[in-house]
Amino acid sequence: MRQFDFFYFLGSGYAYLSVMRIGAMARQAGIAVRWRPFNVRTVMAENNIALRTQVAKVSYMWRDVARRAATHEVPFVKAPIWPTDADLLANRVAMVAAEGGWCEAYTLASFKAWYLEGMALGDRAHLEHVLPPLGKDVDAVVAAANAPSAHQRLKAETNAARGHGIFGSPAFVVDGETFWGDDRLEEAFAWAEGRHRLQQAE
Amino acid sequence: MRQFDFFYFLGSGYAYLSVMRIGAMARQAGIAVRWRPFNVRTVMAENNIALRTQVAKVSYMWRDVARRAATHEVPFVKAPIWPTDADLLANRVAMVAAEGGWCEAYTLASFKAWYLEGMALGDRAHLEHVLPPLGKDVDAVVAAANAPSAHQRLKAETNAARGHGIFGSPAFVVDGETFWGDDRLEEAFAWAEGRHRLQQAE
Repeated sequence: MRQFDFFYFLGSGYAYLSVMRIGAMARQAGIAVRWRPFNVRTVMAENNIALRTQVAKVSYMWRDVARRAATHEVPFVKAPIWPTDADLLANRVAMVAAEGGWCEAYTLASFKAWYLEGMALGDRAHLEHVLPPLGKDVDAVVAAANAPSAHQRLKAETNAARGHGIFGSPAFVVDGETFWGDDRLEEAFAWAEGRHRLQQAE
Repeated sequence: MRQFDFFYFLGSGYAYLSVMRIGAMARQAGIAVRWRPFNVRTVMAENNIALRTQVAKVSYMWRDVARRAATHEVPFVKAPIWPTDADLLANRVAMVAAEGGWCEAYTLASFKAWYLEGMALGDRAHLEHVLPPLGKDVDAVVAAANAPSAHQRLKAETNAARGHGIFGSPAFVVDGETFWGDDRLEEAFAWAEGRHRLQQAE
């Protein structure tokens, strides 16, 4: 059984496309995906990548996301609030969710709240919108997300991403082979199934 | 008839994939592509993008190019000399070629020399390898490439790219719609043929 890790950041524009697509693709391939949020901000800073200052690139990004969403029939209303989750609370809640086994459901609900409901990630409104339907108490989860263990797990997951040469979100690691960008999701699954042309050539 | 502009830089790793693919795709679509080399270095600098300092990203790039080359059955031997064409001579020769109507042939020969023959772009060896088979005299072409008009054309083409919101190479502009990256080449042709899902939705 291949290992398929999905590294992403809550607040990454392109990650939305993968969040909305990966579940069905994983079921079809019969592959269990590990959902692994990490802190892409520190990794990007280490790699001298500062998307916020790249006006032309950011402007392009939202148009590109709209086109890619249409291509993949993913719902798209308008560009979401960005940047978001300034203090990483939504990402630390994801650590609590990963620990508790409900990270995928939390992530899906959060990206939909962000992109389709116009919410800012990590805001009280966002957490009150997504946590109760998952049977979670907002105050209890926030307390856990502010505890040292959540901070530590986010650092550890970020180290893991760094160790795979990851410099952006989303990224996929299949048995040590790293793919970056939602536009490489098909290739990552091809690799997981052993049918990528480079595997056959090597 | 749709207008399809192919903006690229001689020395851009990912542009190789498009250079090798776009001709056949254009013929199949019945679309005339304009080959428009531009100075991506100044545009990237203006957008605070410094690929050379991004070690993880550069390392990823060559592995990704190898995989994408395999996917598209484009020949790949190893990562080429990079960065290359330090003084932009190969790109200014492309201006002479564009003026003379032989830019596509020069570009194809140059990317093959760079990727498959291990040459550095703009070196005398590169120019002596690609120009004579095109019926061009090396010294005459180099003199033209060092004349003010070639410098001016490169600036003008770079301004044109900038005007389309381009911040990297390769990029495709179809009737004012900008696509960035070889991985968007299929979408650009879909747009040119009016069959992109976002066109149908808008």
